[in-house]
Parts: sequence; C-alpha cells; structure tokens
Amino acid sequence: MKHELLFLGKTKDPSIAKSIDEYAGRLKHYTSLSISILKEKKRSKQNRLFIEDQGDLLLQAVSKGTLVVALDSRGIEFTSESFAKKIETWELHGTKHVSYMIGGPEGLSEKVTSSANLILSLSKMTFTHDMVRLFLIEQLYRAYTIKAGEKYHK
Amino acid sequence: MKHELLFLGKTKDPSIAKSIDEYAGRLKHYTSLSISILKEKKRSKQNRLFIEDQGDLLLQAVSKGTLVVALDSRGIEFTSESFAKKIETWELHGTKHVSYMIGGPEGLSEKVTSSANLILSLSKMTFTHDMVRLFLIEQLYRAYTIKAGEKYHK
Repeated sequence: MKHELLFLGKTKDPSIAKSIDEYAGRLKHYTSLSISILKEKKRSKQNRLFIEDQGDLLLQAVSKGTLVVALDSRGIEFTSESFAKKIETWELHGTKHVSYMIGGPEGLSEKVTSSANLILSLSKMTFTHDMVRLFLIEQLYRAYTIKAGEKYHK
Repeated sequence: MKHELLFLGKTKDPSIAKSIDEYAGRLKHYTSLSISILKEKKRSKQNRLFIEDQGDLLLQAVSKGTLVVALDSRGIEFTSESFAKKIETWELHGTKHVSYMIGGPEGLSEKVTSSANLILSLSKMTFTHDMVRLFLIEQLYRAYTIKAGEKYHK
C-alpha cells in the first residue's frame, strides 16, 4: 500500500523538515511512501475563498480510487495501536493508495472534509502545519513498527 | 507564573532539541520558564521498579506547593484554547509554579499520576519522548499567544 502525504508548501522550520526526512527514510523500509509538495495559492482573496482554493488544490492532486484521509483536530482520534489496526484493515480490503491532506492554519475546506473517507485527528489541540506533518509521519512509522511487532513503539 | 518542564534525560534527537530551544526562547518573552534535565536512573531493574524509580526522581525534583501536571495519553484532553484558559485560571488562583512531568516510554508511575493535580493528554496517540517535549512547549507558547490575542495561533 502506498501512503501519499500532500503538503501545501514546503516545511518552513528546517529542523522539523530534517526530522520529517528522517522518518520518511525509516518508513520506506516498511511501505511505499511519497511526499508531494503542492504550490500554495497566493492569499489574495477572502479567507473563505482562499481555504476553498487550497482545498481544490489538494483534491486535484488525488488520483481516482485513492482513499482520502483529511487531518482535522475535530476528526476521529485513534490510539497508535488502533491506527495501526486501521492501516491493517485498509490493506486487508485491498486499498492500494492512501492520500493524507493537511489543511493550512485555517483548516480544510468543506469540500475536502466531505469527500474524505476518514477525518483523522492527531490531537484536539492545534499545532503548527509543520508539526502536524511530523506527527503524522511519525505515527505512520510507529504503526508499521507496531504491525511488525517491533520495539520502537514501546 | 513559572512553568517548569522536568525532562528525564537529554533530548536525543538533535533537530527536535533545536526546535525545543527555539520555542523556549519565544516562550520566555511571555512567562517564566525553566527546563530541568534530570539524570535518568540506570535500567538495571525490573520494568515496574524502573518506572517507580523514574517517578521518584521526578517527584523529588518538585518543590512544595507546586502544581503538578503529569503528561499521559490517557489523561484529559484540551483544545489549545481551553488549555490557554486553564493557564489563565491557574494564574487567577495565584498559582506561582507549575511543574510538568513527562514519563519514559513506559509511562509514569502510579505515585506520579496519583499525586498530580492534572493528568494532561496531548493526544491519544503515543509519541516519542522527544516529541512530547516539543508538543508541550509549543502548546505553552501557543497558549500565551492565545491569551495575548496574538496572531501565531491562527
């Protein structure tokens, strides 16, 4: 199964970018992974329209038949173990491709959340865009070590 | 009010350590902050005894009259806004000193959680020790920007 992370713009904090790279490298030993950096739209419009534009960018980047996971703090929370189980279920159901969408500071458009197969909340708290990327990739890595019965997650 | 973060051992990941330093610097513009690195005990004993030893280390580091916050994924979850309100309430009640305790990969001892004034959960998911430190300090910084009505948290 391929996990595709859709990032709106580059990771700004260089030390967090480094940590993300580190986990991406580790995760690739377990599963297929791609990180797509989408070019952010210019913030020339009203807030609401800007969020919609950003959402359209994300949706356009997704191929047909892909399972879409939208990250939103108001979504469903998992423990690391239940998230690992979720990934296992996707695999068992023959899911080939999962795309993860992280919204900007203002969140994701309704079009995105309503077309998502899962709205995933990593925390009720709001974190920086950069940090959400790091959290997500670390949890993906953790999920695969849990699935493999390995030591890292302890 | 002074926030004291009690860390068991140094932050291992150098890029996460750098991000923590960055937030520590920013947070100090708003409130008093100290980070105490406690020397971890050697893991020579049974797991349960080791956790108890680590817990005792944390509890010994706390001065009398300090409000104790234990971080545990099974604790109470806040949104960033409600966490900012919580800090405000502490200030209003004349709290002078808050100490935050982060357990090792095996969590905190019962002695720690039962003596804590608040068991705080940043997420239902388990993250690395290093990342929990970063999440916590970022949320403290975010809380102060929320309280100050500033822009960062948007």
